[in-house]
Amino acid sequence: MTQDPCIICVAITGSVPQQSDNPAVPITISEQIESTQAAFEVGATIAHCHVRNEDGSPSSDSDRFARLMEGLHQHCPGMIVQLSTGGRSGAGKTRGGMLPLRPDMASLSVGSNNFPTRVYENPPDLVDWLASEMKTYDVRPEIECFDLSHIFQAAKLVGDGRLPANVHVQFVMGVKNAMPVDRAAFDFMRETRARVLPEATWCAAGVGPGQAIVNQWCIETGGHCRT
Amino acid sequence: MTQDPCIICVAITGSVPQQSDNPAVPITISEQIESTQAAFEVGATIAHCHVRNEDGSPSSDSDRFARLMEGLHQHCPGMIVQLSTGGRSGAGKTRGGMLPLRPDMASLSVGSNNFPTRVYENPPDLVDWLASEMKTYDVRPEIECFDLSHIFQAAKLVGDGRLPANVHVQFVMGVKNAMPVDRAAFDFMRETRARVLPEATWCAAGVGPGQAIVNQWCIETGGHCRT
Ligand SMILES: [Zn+2]
Ligand SMILES: [Zn+2]
Ligand SMILES: [Zn+2]
Ligand SMILES: [Zn+2]
Repeated sequence: MTQDPCIICVAITGSVPQQSDNPAVPITISEQIESTQAAFEVGATIAHCHVRNEDGSPSSDSDRFARLMEGLHQHCPGMIVQLSTGGRSGAGKTRGGMLPLRPDMASLSVGSNNFPTRVYENPPDLVDWLASEMKTYDVRPEIECFDLSHIFQAAKLVGDGRLPANVHVQFVMGVKNAMPVDRAAFDFMRETRARVLPEATWCAAGVGPGQAIVNQWCIETGGHCRT
Repeated sequence: MTQDPCIICVAITGSVPQQSDNPAVPITISEQIESTQAAFEVGATIAHCHVRNEDGSPSSDSDRFARLMEGLHQHCPGMIVQLSTGGRSGAGKTRGGMLPLRPDMASLSVGSNNFPTRVYENPPDLVDWLASEMKTYDVRPEIECFDLSHIFQAAKLVGDGRLPANVHVQFVMGVKNAMPVDRAAFDFMRETRARVLPEATWCAAGVGPGQAIVNQWCIETGGHCRT
């Protein structure tokens, strides 16, 4: 085998599921650390992290993120820590309040789209601010592409220096009211990424029932994987 | 020639440009009627209409739309009238307040995306309401596809009966922070439309400097045209 290794990124908690949905969902910091370590020990190398309040609701509290990072560094040495700046955990600039912690990576949405019951709002000035904070604190962005134009938009931000050329790109498929799990669209997004962001690495996530099939497509076509 | 004729849709006013930008922009109802008639007489057959307040700012006032429709029916007999339900002219349900006028067509956005300085918000419940009003008043929707997933979303709404199968689809390219004018993306959107919305007709708009090139692509590939 002369291929580059496939990087497995584990999204251990997300912002939506509760233990009432599935008792295995890690909610507290110690549950998250334990769950990530189990994944790390079987080969996962990126942890995509959200934090929760005591009641399980999503949070973007810096102190919680700091404790989670510290625990992951101790228990999973060498693992790449990626913090979420997603809009389910806060509004406006609170979404980037943890970037001064200098995680290895952070997620970044560069466009807006619909979610199951609402608009996922990423206004242009907030995107610019989050990108500039990531530059300031030397955080490598993972671009969350919920639609095709988000790949072009990332290329524009790379082209004018608002983002570094070596962004990591993730195609997100299967969110209700956004991009469905569709093989032709997946292939076209791959081709577009190769054309407009040639220095970027990439993976894809199939949210919900599409996860296994999207993982398979990624492995088949030389991408990385997200659980 | 055995091809279907190419339908030319004229967007006479839009919601943004002012006479201070270009003195030829028709703003008042009588200017709009005059301008549409000039386009009708040289072959345009759909009028895509916005209305303005006295000061030129965008409006979605039903009385203004009613006067415009009446004038167009008189001066441009047989022309198809399409009213905009776009988000620059109002918020929430005011965007659909003119649908009881039963225009031939109305525009409908089925997803959200970024605009030059803000989020273009089309939350799922508003989309559903606008679609149901169009059914109630027998208005044929033109689906404004600012991104690839909007084509899939329209197919989903057709599939479960929220939209009729014979929607008209428009790909909108060249809006800053949304889908750029890109030939490969244009071709993939065409192919996707043919695959998931086989009964729909289609056209594309290149906003700003991309208009002429997108019109040319439409004519080359058998689509209809929007000015
Ligand atoms: Zn996440
Ligand atoms: Zn441990
Ligand atoms: Zn319009
Ligand atoms: Zn006349």
